[in-house]
Amino acid sequence: MTQTPPPAAPKIPRDKADDYTAEAASARRAFVQAQTGSALEHVGQYSFGPGVLPGNIENFIGVAQVPIGLAGPLRIRGEHANGDFYIPMATTEGTLVASYNRGMRLLSEHGGVKCTVVDDHMQRSPVFMFEDALAARGFGEWVSAHHAEIAAAAEATTRIGKLKVIGQYAVGNLRYLRFNYATGDAAGQNMVGKATLAACQWIQANHPLHPNFLLSGNIDTDKKHSQINTLNTRGKRVIAEITLKDSILKPLMGVTGQQLFHARQISQAGAFIAGSANNAAHAANGITALFIACGQDVANVAESHAATTYCQLLDNGDYYWSITLTSLICATYGGGTGLATQRECLEMLGCYGRGGALKFAEICAGVVLAGETSLSSAILAGDWVSSHDQLGRNRP
Amino acid sequence: MTQTPPPAAPKIPRDKADDYTAEAASARRAFVQAQTGSALEHVGQYSFGPGVLPGNIENFIGVAQVPIGLAGPLRIRGEHANGDFYIPMATTEGTLVASYNRGMRLLSEHGGVKCTVVDDHMQRSPVFMFEDALAARGFGEWVSAHHAEIAAAAEATTRIGKLKVIGQYAVGNLRYLRFNYATGDAAGQNMVGKATLAACQWIQANHPLHPNFLLSGNIDTDKKHSQINTLNTRGKRVIAEITLKDSILKPLMGVTGQQLFHARQISQAGAFIAGSANNAAHAANGITALFIACGQDVANVAESHAATTYCQLLDNGDYYWSITLTSLICATYGGGTGLATQRECLEMLGCYGRGGALKFAEICAGVVLAGETSLSSAILAGDWVSSHDQLGRNRP
Amino acid sequence: MTQTPPPAAPKIPRDKADDYTAEAASARRAFVQAQTGSALEHVGQYSFGPGVLPGNIENFIGVAQVPIGLAGPLRIRGEHANGDFYIPMATTEGTLVASYNRGMRLLSEHGGVKCTVVDDHMQRSPVFMFEDALAARGFGEWVSAHHAEIAAAAEATTRIGKLKVIGQYAVGNLRYLRFNYATGDAAGQNMVGKATLAACQWIQANHPLHPNFLLSGNIDTDKKHSQINTLNTRGKRVIAEITLKDSILKPLMGVTGQQLFHARQISQAGAFIAGSANNAAHAANGITALFIACGQDVANVAESHAATTYCQLLDNGDYYWSITLTSLICATYGGGTGLATQRECLEMLGCYGRGGALKFAEICAGVVLAGETSLSSAILAGDWVSSHDQLGRNRP
Amino acid sequence: MTQTPPPAAPKIPRDKADDYTAEAASARRAFVQAQTGSALEHVGQYSFGPGVLPGNIENFIGVAQVPIGLAGPLRIRGEHANGDFYIPMATTEGTLVASYNRGMRLLSEHGGVKCTVVDDHMQRSPVFMFEDALAARGFGEWVSAHHAEIAAAAEATTRIGKLKVIGQYAVGNLRYLRFNYATGDAAGQNMVGKATLAACQWIQANHPLHPNFLLSGNIDTDKKHSQINTLNTRGKRVIAEITLKDSILKPLMGVTGQQLFHARQISQAGAFIAGSANNAAHAANGITALFIACGQDVANVAESHAATTYCQLLDNGDYYWSITLTSLICATYGGGTGLATQRECLEMLGCYGRGGALKFAEICAGVVLAGETSLSSAILAGDWVSSHDQLGRNRP
Repeated sequence: MTQTPPPAAPKIPRDKADDYTAEAASARRAFVQAQTGSALEHVGQYSFGPGVLPGNIENFIGVAQVPIGLAGPLRIRGEHANGDFYIPMATTEGTLVASYNRGMRLLSEHGGVKCTVVDDHMQRSPVFMFEDALAARGFGEWVSAHHAEIAAAAEATTRIGKLKVIGQYAVGNLRYLRFNYATGDAAGQNMVGKATLAACQWIQANHPLHPNFLLSGNIDTDKKHSQINTLNTRGKRVIAEITLKDSILKPLMGVTGQQLFHARQISQAGAFIAGSANNAAHAANGITALFIACGQDVANVAESHAATTYCQLLDNGDYYWSITLTSLICATYGGGTGLATQRECLEMLGCYGRGGALKFAEICAGVVLAGETSLSSAILAGDWVSSHDQLGRNRP
Repeated sequence: MTQTPPPAAPKIPRDKADDYTAEAASARRAFVQAQTGSALEHVGQYSFGPGVLPGNIENFIGVAQVPIGLAGPLRIRGEHANGDFYIPMATTEGTLVASYNRGMRLLSEHGGVKCTVVDDHMQRSPVFMFEDALAARGFGEWVSAHHAEIAAAAEATTRIGKLKVIGQYAVGNLRYLRFNYATGDAAGQNMVGKATLAACQWIQANHPLHPNFLLSGNIDTDKKHSQINTLNTRGKRVIAEITLKDSILKPLMGVTGQQLFHARQISQAGAFIAGSANNAAHAANGITALFIACGQDVANVAESHAATTYCQLLDNGDYYWSITLTSLICATYGGGTGLATQRECLEMLGCYGRGGALKFAEICAGVVLAGETSLSSAILAGDWVSSHDQLGRNRP
Repeated sequence: MTQTPPPAAPKIPRDKADDYTAEAASARRAFVQAQTGSALEHVGQYSFGPGVLPGNIENFIGVAQVPIGLAGPLRIRGEHANGDFYIPMATTEGTLVASYNRGMRLLSEHGGVKCTVVDDHMQRSPVFMFEDALAARGFGEWVSAHHAEIAAAAEATTRIGKLKVIGQYAVGNLRYLRFNYATGDAAGQNMVGKATLAACQWIQANHPLHPNFLLSGNIDTDKKHSQINTLNTRGKRVIAEITLKDSILKPLMGVTGQQLFHARQISQAGAFIAGSANNAAHAANGITALFIACGQDVANVAESHAATTYCQLLDNGDYYWSITLTSLICATYGGGTGLATQRECLEMLGCYGRGGALKFAEICAGVVLAGETSLSSAILAGDWVSSHDQLGRNRP
Repeated sequence: MTQTPPPAAPKIPRDKADDYTAEAASARRAFVQAQTGSALEHVGQYSFGPGVLPGNIENFIGVAQVPIGLAGPLRIRGEHANGDFYIPMATTEGTLVASYNRGMRLLSEHGGVKCTVVDDHMQRSPVFMFEDALAARGFGEWVSAHHAEIAAAAEATTRIGKLKVIGQYAVGNLRYLRFNYATGDAAGQNMVGKATLAACQWIQANHPLHPNFLLSGNIDTDKKHSQINTLNTRGKRVIAEITLKDSILKPLMGVTGQQLFHARQISQAGAFIAGSANNAAHAANGITALFIACGQDVANVAESHAATTYCQLLDNGDYYWSITLTSLICATYGGGTGLATQRECLEMLGCYGRGGALKFAEICAGVVLAGETSLSSAILAGDWVSSHDQLGRNRP
């Protein structure tokens, strides 16, 4: 530490005139090669013009080429997604597409998976600071009494966002608010940030105490799992359901509903003692593969992978299986949805653009349940390891 | 529902001779176009031969092209990563690269971020079933007494994996075991699955009760956040640390250490009441962007985004800031690490292949802390929304 | 197991004419002596007539005599509790009363602890079952639209309880409802059980699907800690606050605000990784001692001990310390509040009967904060163990 | 606030010569009467000499008389508790004793409840502070290498306590240690505090960096529920099991095993989304009633009420029901166990003194399962509210 540190490394080159060009990207790749020796030959091969990228990336150098596998058909019986779907899944994990594909066949042969969006809102959660808890409580009452004006201030910033509910949470001399918005077909994190800032500024100007605030008090809870999401939803709350019959299940999966139900008790108890965000198997796999393919904000896997499975063995021996994704964040407009490959994948699902978000959410849920049935059966039937051995050949 | 359901949709074509060819992929894209009308023109443009893909994908149709932005240099002072790094970040979220870039400058101007891997193991968690809790307890003692034989059975399946510790958790007449392995430079989920299966089969054959087991009792906890990961680590536990000086911090970020510390109290309380997996800001953003670029199993963002921030304002006014990633799952060998763009990105970090995993983990932690400092400062300084407005132009 | 089991042990005697008499109690003690050899001499010494006990106990045999220590005075500046209070604490743990007493002195010398009840409702959470998630969602909308009728049905069963909010939580084909009631000065668990049963019966009769329900779906969450309580309150949400000055703190406790704040960062990080219900020290101690003395339902310590501490070191060096009890369940009417010693203890606090519950809640919070300051200081100053050694003499 | 505050209230009188006398207690009651008007007539009636109280209470004024009801017989088939037990339950909640009594009959008629202690240790969790994470990691390795010396230092302070395992948890530049001790028949919180202080002092003196430490870093987690307790046990981990037959269950409880299993799925899902410490019903009720009667540290209900239920419907229709108490803290020696009524209640269970703790733990678990079967059945059969209406007559 007492030595003179080495001089700072060179800055990344930028083109002040127009940084979103193939030339600027190429210049940066050359810079990387000069600095690191890595040529970025494949990274530099992309099929679209960088001029579309403002709003999506800075210091563009090229692309990650993530392999997409095709799964399906998956028959979905939702309110928005209704029919047979072929699913693009971007992943580098062998077996994943094959396993989901198997589950999709199972669900489809039962006539399709029911998918239902039961709640839908995006949050920003500012926090206001007061002299003491009494003042903070009074503030909370004032907020409730001024909901209409606050909503007007928030909604003035957006054509689409609508403020629905403001949750309130008291800690010490703080008042955390959780603004819940309908955001249409956008995921809406930025939309609600801007709207909530305007609302907070209106509050600060109009409340007699002109209280200080932070735009996020960390209960949004942006880019991380939380129990508040499990309870109160972040993004979409969407449920996939199937009632499995042994006559179809047994030949395809080698297990019965009763065996699955038995194992379910064990995995639920495990999830409970582990303090798990999800008492099911591997929702993150299907969601991530769909998210990468379809231009979603993939970091939202942090929130979106949370789920609760609820099952019952029916009197006739059929097996009711549901999974509730409590905080699925997805969009069919804005963000990365309009980029070249991403838009194509949304289009093959019939989900691109306005009006697609609820349909896409239903597809996500159906895909997740397909993956649950396949992996849970594999663990039980004993072919989990052998299938990875066969399809995951390049592993150590 | 009483109507005759529509006939099943056609099956996805496969080439039985060799399915990993450009022709097979093209045939599937044509199939998608015929079924859905979506041409997949861009998806079909990739720069590598599909023959490398077995073990990574099934039913290959092409690639998702995810834009990569370049951030840095980030000066890291780790045991394995030591020097200035340029960071490839694959994302479609505007502002993200710029924001991390700003944080990297802050850390670098302080002489670099200290990064340390403090723990490292991958899990598989079988569960054994007994007549009653007494028998299960006896089994637990037997497992402890036979650790060497169990380890030998497990390690016979792998050149790399080493069984370190078997955790035991008792519930009812069940005994959950949590096998913890060193897995070298692979993430190791499949490796430990195979090894644990062998261990369980040895146990079943040799324990006097020949107990039934499931290979996963769901406390692994694969592809999901859990408190057991926060406590006991999954993958790498890696810590990034910086001691910020106001003389550097204030000009760059517009805030002081004291202000950050004040806000930290509020965001920690928020995270606590929310039951959050992470009491910091947005670790998932940096991790996901690195994971997509570098061929990681991106679904592991579910586990990897968990973190604990711990900070202190020092007597001299400097601000000590640490973030502990408790379950970072990463690899520089196997999985998607060898694919075309992914390998290039690992190579520009000097992390590709054997010996790179701990270095890559340190880089991940440093990147995360850079993003934490930038976003936390922006929320406080009030330029969070305005920067998204400027750099996230295509949003509604 | 194959042996014939021993015959059943004799039944406990009951007096069918009037079981709440000294004679019936005596007969049962004699029975215990005959069966076990234990004379229950002290258990049989109580100072009230058993005729008051219906509604509180069955098979009465006598009393547990739990020592009460006196602490205080504690100066409280609340909305309902305002002045100096002497606190009865029933415990068998040496040091506890002395330690709380020390904290009370600290708070009082600062002019008193501010205490504020910021929320107040008791829950019962039935769950309704449906064919699928879509039907359950429709039911949820129906419940929202029929709130007034549902409230009327619920409130017809009680003179005091008022239905405020019905939370809704969707999982699979289930709809969990969480009825939140104002319950006056009673804790209200039975009141809200009865009211919610009536509401559910009205719903079942009037909803077109006549859905089945369970009166509790386990998200009440009765007699157990939960994150939903931390977020949404169960019973009273009450906050105690103090701003400590080193000039008073240092002589009394041997520590400074800055030292306490430093240690707070460490204990908060610990609580976070541990997944703790409370990121403070030992709220359960003070609450339990008050609850036993004052005739509360002591099992509610399970819920009531949850708390969140939030602190700041102010610019002038003073130390703001708050604790938020998120689910304090207490009563001054009904339950055990009217029994002999219990009523006396409530009366010495001026809390017995109608109108006392909010005052009692404020006292609980003030007492808890007193205990927090004392124990936290002791851990830091190093006299934690020595004081227990001195005052906990009978221990091994 | 700008007014002159009222003068401080008078101090509680103490007798410097001998404060543990009836006279000193009487003087304090007179003081309370003078200050508050409350005569404490019943509080002053106790049947033992105050000379036994040092180590249990300070500023003694008398006792809380908590009614005890008798339940049972409960047939237990444990390793330590084996036979029929009559259970003293101290509570003021009507219906509680009757309900547990009903459950005890159910379990007894099945031949008794199996109870097994599967783990047993008490914790103190110091935290050591370092320059950076690297130094903290090195310290962790040093601690592992010096386990024997550390244990010797700890055990030199106690005749009974034995240091078993030191868990390690890394956060930033901190190293949290969790010392786990066997503590014989004492609960042991003070014992392990003293022993761990000695161990920390030995570490501080002998480690080259002579690091600072806090005796508790809040992951003990003393007097509060935590997930670390659920996973790693605090106090006793004890399991109660029963296999119910419809032929006995249906006549007594009005429900079948299949119905209970169906409802169990619903209450488990509820507990999971609520983030509950316990996915069963009301363990806190039985534990608290036993704890008050038997001289336990009742504040430990905070930790002790955590539980995990695991059930299966067997092929023959029988219903396997287990509950695992993960952090039951109990003692039969030290603390309040030797006081007048408390000792009598322990004696009627055959648990007083040395050698009783495991037996008492088994009894606690058996009692809890009895209460679970009764309440769960009542919710299902619809007589939950009506029984409270009948037995809880004094309520509003």
